[in-house]
Amino acid sequence: MNLKYIFEPKSVAVIGVSKTEGTVGNGILSNILQSNFKGAVYPVNPKYKEIMSVRTYKDILSVPDSIDMAVICIPSKHVITVVKQCAKKGVKGIVVITAGFKEIGKKGKKLEDEIIAIAHKHNIALIGPNVLGVINTQQEISLNANFALKMPKPGNIALISQSGAIGVAALDYAHQHDLGISKFISIGNKAVIDESDVIEYLINDEDTKIITIYAEDIVYPDRFLKMAKKANEKLKPILIIKTGRSVRGAVATHSHTGALSTSDTAYDALFTKCGVIRVETLTQLFEYAEGFTCLKQPKGNRIVVVTNGGGLGVIATDAAEKYGLEMTTFEEKTLQELKLELPPTANIHNPVDIIGDADARRVSNTLSIIAKDKNVDAIVVSILPTVETDMNAIASNLCDFTKVNPKLPIFGNLMSLEPDPPFEELLENAHIPNFVFPETDIKVLAAIIKYHKWMKQPKTKTTKFEVNKNEARKLLNNIKKKKRIHLSETESYQLLESYGMKVIENSIAKDLDSALIAANKIGYPVVLKIISPDILHKIDVGGVKLNIKNEEEFKKAFKEITKKINKKCPDAEIQGYLIEKFFTEKSIEVIIGVNAITSFGSLIMFGLGGTFVELFKDVSFRLGPITKQDARNMIEETKGFQILKGFRGQSSYDIDSTIDCLLRISQLVTDFPEIKELDLNPIKVLEDGKGVVIFDAKVILAKEKEE
Amino acid sequence: MNLKYIFEPKSVAVIGVSKTEGTVGNGILSNILQSNFKGAVYPVNPKYKEIMSVRTYKDILSVPDSIDMAVICIPSKHVITVVKQCAKKGVKGIVVITAGFKEIGKKGKKLEDEIIAIAHKHNIALIGPNVLGVINTQQEISLNANFALKMPKPGNIALISQSGAIGVAALDYAHQHDLGISKFISIGNKAVIDESDVIEYLINDEDTKIITIYAEDIVYPDRFLKMAKKANEKLKPILIIKTGRSVRGAVATHSHTGALSTSDTAYDALFTKCGVIRVETLTQLFEYAEGFTCLKQPKGNRIVVVTNGGGLGVIATDAAEKYGLEMTTFEEKTLQELKLELPPTANIHNPVDIIGDADARRVSNTLSIIAKDKNVDAIVVSILPTVETDMNAIASNLCDFTKVNPKLPIFGNLMSLEPDPPFEELLENAHIPNFVFPETDIKVLAAIIKYHKWMKQPKTKTTKFEVNKNEARKLLNNIKKKKRIHLSETESYQLLESYGMKVIENSIAKDLDSALIAANKIGYPVVLKIISPDILHKIDVGGVKLNIKNEEEFKKAFKEITKKINKKCPDAEIQGYLIEKFFTEKSIEVIIGVNAITSFGSLIMFGLGGTFVELFKDVSFRLGPITKQDARNMIEETKGFQILKGFRGQSSYDIDSTIDCLLRISQLVTDFPEIKELDLNPIKVLEDGKGVVIFDAKVILAKEKEE
Repeated sequence: MNLKYIFEPKSVAVIGVSKTEGTVGNGILSNILQSNFKGAVYPVNPKYKEIMSVRTYKDILSVPDSIDMAVICIPSKHVITVVKQCAKKGVKGIVVITAGFKEIGKKGKKLEDEIIAIAHKHNIALIGPNVLGVINTQQEISLNANFALKMPKPGNIALISQSGAIGVAALDYAHQHDLGISKFISIGNKAVIDESDVIEYLINDEDTKIITIYAEDIVYPDRFLKMAKKANEKLKPILIIKTGRSVRGAVATHSHTGALSTSDTAYDALFTKCGVIRVETLTQLFEYAEGFTCLKQPKGNRIVVVTNGGGLGVIATDAAEKYGLEMTTFEEKTLQELKLELPPTANIHNPVDIIGDADARRVSNTLSIIAKDKNVDAIVVSILPTVETDMNAIASNLCDFTKVNPKLPIFGNLMSLEPDPPFEELLENAHIPNFVFPETDIKVLAAIIKYHKWMKQPKTKTTKFEVNKNEARKLLNNIKKKKRIHLSETESYQLLESYGMKVIENSIAKDLDSALIAANKIGYPVVLKIISPDILHKIDVGGVKLNIKNEEEFKKAFKEITKKINKKCPDAEIQGYLIEKFFTEKSIEVIIGVNAITSFGSLIMFGLGGTFVELFKDVSFRLGPITKQDARNMIEETKGFQILKGFRGQSSYDIDSTIDCLLRISQLVTDFPEIKELDLNPIKVLEDGKGVVIFDAKVILAKEKEE
Repeated sequence: MNLKYIFEPKSVAVIGVSKTEGTVGNGILSNILQSNFKGAVYPVNPKYKEIMSVRTYKDILSVPDSIDMAVICIPSKHVITVVKQCAKKGVKGIVVITAGFKEIGKKGKKLEDEIIAIAHKHNIALIGPNVLGVINTQQEISLNANFALKMPKPGNIALISQSGAIGVAALDYAHQHDLGISKFISIGNKAVIDESDVIEYLINDEDTKIITIYAEDIVYPDRFLKMAKKANEKLKPILIIKTGRSVRGAVATHSHTGALSTSDTAYDALFTKCGVIRVETLTQLFEYAEGFTCLKQPKGNRIVVVTNGGGLGVIATDAAEKYGLEMTTFEEKTLQELKLELPPTANIHNPVDIIGDADARRVSNTLSIIAKDKNVDAIVVSILPTVETDMNAIASNLCDFTKVNPKLPIFGNLMSLEPDPPFEELLENAHIPNFVFPETDIKVLAAIIKYHKWMKQPKTKTTKFEVNKNEARKLLNNIKKKKRIHLSETESYQLLESYGMKVIENSIAKDLDSALIAANKIGYPVVLKIISPDILHKIDVGGVKLNIKNEEEFKKAFKEITKKINKKCPDAEIQGYLIEKFFTEKSIEVIIGVNAITSFGSLIMFGLGGTFVELFKDVSFRLGPITKQDARNMIEETKGFQILKGFRGQSSYDIDSTIDCLLRISQLVTDFPEIKELDLNPIKVLEDGKGVVIFDAKVILAKEKEE
């Protein structure tokens, strides 16, 4: 379905316009007329011959011309009839302003489903229901088809809002801050068209350089992922504020991964995967959006601050440290030139203080010198009003500067005592973000630098190991046949081994005699565990003995376990005994977990064991399938990485093998989406080059229905 | 020195006014005249008879009337002469605008010192040098004695700025956001008057309800502490942004405490001690200041959000979770009343959605119902502009609401499509903070709630234990006599024992025979350590043996240690051998450290050992002396507290004894400020009720000069 008919219609019908001011339809027609829409508008209302001097039709079928888009604002019970008429008329875009559908419950949901069916049948791009409307500021279209908002200033920021209220608040903010908007759309219930469809359209919209989204959910993460990646390929950053509701529902909480993934972990992982920048607040959304309108890629994170007020330099330096930017050190040549240019009381080192009596010329000369320095990736210019400062002249010089240095990002804080100084527009047109205080410039620059760093990261493909997929398939089918969902420890081990992972050396026995033979073969010390699909927590019921040193101890341990199990779990099916090597090699424990989350896919977790995971929740998440780079990032972004790589002169552990294990797990759960939960806890990571060994595995399949 | 002559002069001389517009003196005179100053102003310049139609004098001594305050803006080399004249004239307040003193180096410092001496001798309140000036918006004074700023709107916020530049930026922001200012002062080099003096004055200033400060350093923390505490007693919150420079210089880094205290830890600890609210950015400074102008104390942290746009409710709920506020649950009665009042599609639960067609009346009725609910501590009202919303009427109703409910804090987000809507002033006068988005209301409310919670915390006195101070004094004197600064392990233990702390059972021996007797007396297993003031890291040179199980092993260990030390540290003075009990009781390791920081006093640190401190830097700091409540807070604010109190059903450890230990250490370092560094690492905390045992102690005294 093509959103061309929504954003670029040649003809618009407004169905349900009344002559009463303050009503929704009246507002929409008035806004379309006032916005100087370049197409024709057709009010529809059987009661009138004309509204606002425009010829009005009794229904859409009576309109003599073809209609690209219809805006519907009649009571919900009549909407279906009108949508059908639209379909008959050949309308290709519909905006259902009316509320009272899915959001009010079952009855509304039924109405909405009927509308969806019609839209799909006739290939209609339907927006809503329950929306504010649509805006396109593009001069050749100039369409303001909404009932609450004035036409914003044209610009490069597109805004997609799930909530109408936030749409109003956001465009209000944009208006107050003089930010330019390319497109605005309120998508409400997302019955047919959702944010991903709008992104798809905006990718090819020349006016849109930055996409901002307010979302309460993302129903089709897969498609969102695809579109977001495409937007990034076109260098259109997506900024999103995602609020509210949990996706936790589907996640069981008796696994570590489940307990540690908060309601929003899946969304975080989704956005990380496709380079979408998640912000926390509406203010931040627009600060970032304004920053990204600089449309430049900083080479690195070395910044310079130029100011006429020392205190601002101090503030900026603190902010740079906080947000991880480097206050660059100038080349010797730069220092010499600055010394010649600036008065003796100036500070020629970064932050450069050109002092209070600086005029526009001194600002420009300083910037020209700095721009030649190879160690400079971005500049922040923070200028207070003094008797000497002609801010309009300074702004105009900054605009000239960006023409000469088109690749060097420059951010301003030109302050003013006037409420709406003319230089603000100058700066905006030259794509120079101008914030109130330098701390905001620095925060936003840091986000831009992080984005471009992410963009430059090699996009490797997912690794494909040679594995024994058939064996795994057979094993899982077998379990499903038995209507079981929990794999026993040995089954879990087999599954992991079929995908090339190393589990602790072990053997299964049916009775004491065969167990003894197995123990002798493995070699003491060993561990003895009961095997039963009915006992999940073996240690708690006395089903595990560690560090058994010889035959005598083994016999004793065997008897004890059998006795305890008979007493505590008399009804458990005992499938046998597991004998494992007792491990003494130097190692550190990590955890890998997987949670399959409805519609998102497999959420993979990594973390060090013990207090790292229990208390500090020092874990990282990614949505599978993951690449080698993803796996490495997962490990590196935990604090535990410091321990793995050798903390304070201690030995380092086998990170490459840990990455290998993460990738094999990713391949396994991608091949078998029926794996709902998987917990490898612990995995012992040996010293560098010695590999990893899985010590305990819990695998749970989805119930047949859930798959 | 009384700042009355600075803020409330009856007569002001401006020394160094020229007729040239744009010069500093000219600007000041012009501002004083324009501000409609209620006293008399006397320009001083030998060249003119009048400036701006005001009679001008050749020097201050020629002025026929008495002068309360002189503003000096002549070149720095002439300032001393003029200050002397002022003293002779009996001027009690001087503002030295001129720069070129301490900040330019030695020569300037000398000039400044001379001025300081004159000011002190004649009891003159001298501001600066190197400042913008002073503002008092109080109607009966109406003084704007600065060269860069227009008279701000009168209000309750006082601003003290060390930097002139930040002063300009900040008052610019206040102007743009329509915030009222009571007093403004730029304090520059703080030669005589610093922020603490200004706070002292503001405590009794009726117009000032909130004190905001921009500071780059605080030279006299003790006095600041005292004044800040007094301000809090008067319920005047202090908001500070402290940037820049480190106080690290004095801190050695070979102790844990030193390495873990960042440059700003001492400032953080200072502000925590006196309830000063530290903010990160200028924006935050003013957001908080605006919030505090509500002048109300929330009873608790249970808030209600009322909105006409569902999305805003979602945003607010997310923010409440982020900032630790509780979205309250209404009483049943409230729900019933809301149900009667609101249309059926409204959401009567918190966040209350009164939906898009709400008018001013519905807003008021909803608030009146909610105000009666006992579970409500604060209200956020977030209203979008729609056809139905008369924002001025809503604002006016909110003002009435605060009259009826004077104790219930109410925050607004009344949005507007106009640039400067009239209702903003209404709200400000009624002390209803009004931010752009609800996220800011919530953030600011959280800060206010935290402040009042801190204020309500019982201000207990520091505990005084009965200790053997004389013994400690003797011990330390003895060490100083020997010109040593490092205490040996046994000396450290003795010091701690004299203050009633328990150290691991130990004994000292000179040779193998006496060591064997000691070991037998303590009982195996034991630990053997070499004692030498020359060896700081005993383990590294093989000077320690753990878990010695019997006499035979003991003899062997003794020989090994002696051999290794002879080889590795042949010149070390061996004072003997330390025999300690080898400890096997269940315990957890914590660290207590102290760093004496010049002018701040003793910075006390607490944290759990191991990765807690090493990797996660999970430690807390307070400035000594600390109270029992402080000690408890120190422990509770670390993550390690979860372990101490019994993590996931595991045993809990003796927190009371840990508090006791912290308090005794606080008393020790307060009694002996010559203790520069102290590291107790580890202290083993036993299970609940079993106490704590110190296992290793390092104490370093200040060099004689440093004391």
